[in-house]
Amino acid sequence: MTDLISRRTAVLGPNMPTFYERPIHLVRGLGVHVWDKDGREYLDCYNNVPHVGHCHPKVVDAIARQAATLNTHTRYLHDGIVDYAERLTAKFDHDLDQLIMVCTGSEANDIAIRMAHAVTGKVGIISTDNTYHGNTHLVTQLSSRKPPIGGYAPYVKRVPSPDTLRPLGGSLAAQGKTFAAEVQGAIDALEAEGHGFAGFMFCPVFANEGLHDLDREFLQPVVDVVHRAGGLLLCDEVQPGFGRCGSHWWGHDRMPIAPDVVTLGKPMANGHPVAAVVTRPDVMAAFRNAFGYFNTFGGNPVSCAAATAVLDVLEEEELVQNARIAGNELKANLASLDHRLIASVRGVGLFVAVEIEQDGTPAAQDAAKLVEAMKDQGILMGRTGRHANTLKFRPPLPFSNDHAAQVAEVLNATLGKL
Amino acid sequence: MTDLISRRTAVLGPNMPTFYERPIHLVRGLGVHVWDKDGREYLDCYNNVPHVGHCHPKVVDAIARQAATLNTHTRYLHDGIVDYAERLTAKFDHDLDQLIMVCTGSEANDIAIRMAHAVTGKVGIISTDNTYHGNTHLVTQLSSRKPPIGGYAPYVKRVPSPDTLRPLGGSLAAQGKTFAAEVQGAIDALEAEGHGFAGFMFCPVFANEGLHDLDREFLQPVVDVVHRAGGLLLCDEVQPGFGRCGSHWWGHDRMPIAPDVVTLGKPMANGHPVAAVVTRPDVMAAFRNAFGYFNTFGGNPVSCAAATAVLDVLEEEELVQNARIAGNELKANLASLDHRLIASVRGVGLFVAVEIEQDGTPAAQDAAKLVEAMKDQGILMGRTGRHANTLKFRPPLPFSNDHAAQVAEVLNATLGKL
Repeated sequence: MTDLISRRTAVLGPNMPTFYERPIHLVRGLGVHVWDKDGREYLDCYNNVPHVGHCHPKVVDAIARQAATLNTHTRYLHDGIVDYAERLTAKFDHDLDQLIMVCTGSEANDIAIRMAHAVTGKVGIISTDNTYHGNTHLVTQLSSRKPPIGGYAPYVKRVPSPDTLRPLGGSLAAQGKTFAAEVQGAIDALEAEGHGFAGFMFCPVFANEGLHDLDREFLQPVVDVVHRAGGLLLCDEVQPGFGRCGSHWWGHDRMPIAPDVVTLGKPMANGHPVAAVVTRPDVMAAFRNAFGYFNTFGGNPVSCAAATAVLDVLEEEELVQNARIAGNELKANLASLDHRLIASVRGVGLFVAVEIEQDGTPAAQDAAKLVEAMKDQGILMGRTGRHANTLKFRPPLPFSNDHAAQVAEVLNATLGKL
Repeated sequence: MTDLISRRTAVLGPNMPTFYERPIHLVRGLGVHVWDKDGREYLDCYNNVPHVGHCHPKVVDAIARQAATLNTHTRYLHDGIVDYAERLTAKFDHDLDQLIMVCTGSEANDIAIRMAHAVTGKVGIISTDNTYHGNTHLVTQLSSRKPPIGGYAPYVKRVPSPDTLRPLGGSLAAQGKTFAAEVQGAIDALEAEGHGFAGFMFCPVFANEGLHDLDREFLQPVVDVVHRAGGLLLCDEVQPGFGRCGSHWWGHDRMPIAPDVVTLGKPMANGHPVAAVVTRPDVMAAFRNAFGYFNTFGGNPVSCAAATAVLDVLEEEELVQNARIAGNELKANLASLDHRLIASVRGVGLFVAVEIEQDGTPAAQDAAKLVEAMKDQGILMGRTGRHANTLKFRPPLPFSNDHAAQVAEVLNATLGKL
C-alpha cells in the first residue's frame, strides 16, 4: 500500500488527501458494502453517489447494454434523453418542467448561476459562509472551504449559515428571520456596490453547513426576500435529492418552497458521471437564448440509460420510503446513545448528523478520531459542519434497520474507548 | 420523428439545434458506422468521441466489468487511476508527468486556466478570435462562437487566428511571425491594463479555426513570445490528441513544441465522460497547493477502466498508424476531386478539411447544403472555420482506405448535383 501511495503522489501531485490517516484500498462493492484488497468488509455509511447501492445489477446492466448499442450526443435525436427528461421533470412541481443534462454537479451549478445572470442581467450571488457547491472557477467563488485561486470575487457575498446549537439570532425560533435579514443585507450590499443581485444558491438541507435542524417554515422568509429583490432561488439538490430525505423526492419539497432553478448531481446515475439543471421554461429560455450551451457528454444515451435505471430501482425497491424508515431508525438508534461527547443528533431520512463537543466546545479532533476508529471497526462515515466536528452518516439507500443497529452499536463501543 | 422533436423541445427548451435540417434519429453504432431507427446505415466521418470505433467491445466490456465490481472516487486508494496515470503520462515528453482526471474538456480547460493563474499570479488569458474551448463560465470567455452571458471579461484578449487561404501577414511564410506579434500585442495590452498575462490557450492544429495548413515552425515564434513574458502555454488537445494526427500521439509533438499544460477530452474514453489535465510537477504543485481540487466522478474506477481500454485498443489495433495511412488516403482522394467550389483540401491524419468557396468567397450555404446532402447519401460530416464554409471529416480511427474512397466518391457525386 505504501508503494501505491507513493506512486499515486508521483502521478497525481501534492494535496490529494485520502479520507483516512491509514487510507483504505477498495477493490469491490455491492449494495451498502465495500471490500478492501485484503478482503475486509466495510459498511458504507458515507457514499451517497452509489445511491441505489454499489454496483446495482440493474444499473450496471443498463450501462452495459446501452454502451454496446450506441453512445452519441444530443445533436442527434435520441429517445433516451427525451424519455428521461419527461420522467424526471414529472417528479417536480412549481413548473420545473425543463432540464439540461451535464456531467457533474459543478457544471450544473455553473449553469444555474448563469441562468440567474441571464434572467436578471445582474451578477451578484449569495451563498452561506460554510458551504461548497463545486469546483469550476465560477462556482468556487461560493465555497468557503476551498477559497478560489486569486481570492474571492467581489460579486459574491457569504451570509452566516444556520446552526442547531448556535442558532442565528440566538434561538431556533428567531433563526429563519435572522437568516433572511442577513440575505437582505447581502442583497443591499450587492446593489450598493453596483453588482446587482442575481440569485441565492443554497442546499435545502444545509448539508455542508452541518445538516441542521430547521423547521418547515425556516426558508420562507428568505424566499420572500430573494423574490422581492427580483433574484432567483438556486437550489442545490446534489446531496438531498433523489429521495434521500425520505419524506420527499427533493429537499425543497420538504421545507416546502418553490425554487427557480434546481441542480442535481452525485446520486443521479449511481456513479456514472451525470448531473442536471431543472428549471422553468421562462428561465431556460432566458439562458438558452443568451448562450448556445452544448455539452458533448451531457445527456448521452448511456448516461440517460444509467439515470433511467436509477429511477427504476428507486421506484421498484421503494427506496425513498426505505430512506424514511431506515433513516428514522438510524437517527433513533444514535439518539439513544448516551455519551458526553454527543451534543446533538439530527437528520433527514438517510442523512444523519451527530455533533461532537467537549464541554460545549466543538471537538473536531475527537470527531476525526471517531471517523478513523469507526473505519477500523468496519464502518465508513465522514465529518461535516463549520468546525468539522459533526459525524455524517449518508449511506446508499438500501440501508436496513439492522445496519442502523450495527452503526449505533459500533459507535457506542468506539465512543467508550475514546 | 416530428413527435420526438416536439417532445424534445418541450423538455429541453429552445435553441437546442440538431446538426441537420432534417435531423437523424440514431439507434445503433458499431465501428465507423451508425444506423437510424429505419435501419439506414451511415458512415460516420464526424464523431471523434467514439475514437476507437462506436461501441468497441473491449471498451464496453471494460466499462461493464468495472461497473459491476466497484465505482468510487479518488479519496480511496485504487490501482485504476495510478496505473492509468503512469501509462498515459509516459506518452508525454517535456516533464508532463502528472495529471488531474475530470469529466469534460470544459472542466479540464477551466483548470488549465487556473493553473496559469496560480503559477503567474496574474489573470490575463489569450486565445484566437475563432475558437471554442468549452462551456464553463470561465472558459466561455475564450470562445468566439458562443459569447458568454453578460459579455466578455476584459482580462481575455482574442488574437486573429491563422488561415490557409488568407494568411496573417499576407503569406504562409510570414504567418508565424505575424501571429506571434499579435500575441505579443495582446500580452502588452493585458499588462498595460493591469490584468497581467497568465497564459495562451490554443489547439495545436487550430481545429475550430478551420484546421489550417501550418508548417512545423509556425508555433515557435509564439512559444518564444509567451515564455519570454512569463506566461504558460495551455495546449488544448481535446480534438487532435490520442493519435488522430497520425504522425504523433499529440498535436503539440507534431509542431513540435513543449506546452506547460495539456488538456484532453472527447476521445479519451470513447464516449464515457472522461477528460484530463496533464502538466509538469511544478505547475501541478502551484495549482494543488493553491486550491484543494477534488472531482467526485473524475478518475473513478470505471472512468479509468474505460480510458485504459482505449489505450489498449489504440495500441493493439495500431490505430495511430492507421490514422496516418487512412488519413493520407482520405486527403489524397479528396484532393483529387476537381470542382470549382473546392478552394483547399488540407488535414492532419484522420482530420481533413475541404474549404468551400464561390469565386474566392467563403460559401457557407454551399457547405451547409453539402453536409445535408452527404447525410442523405449516408455520410455524416460537419463544418468548421471562421465562415463555417469548411467541410470537416473527423471519423473514428478504424477508418479504412475503402471508406476514404467511398467518401470521395459520394462527395464528388454530391458536388456534381449542386
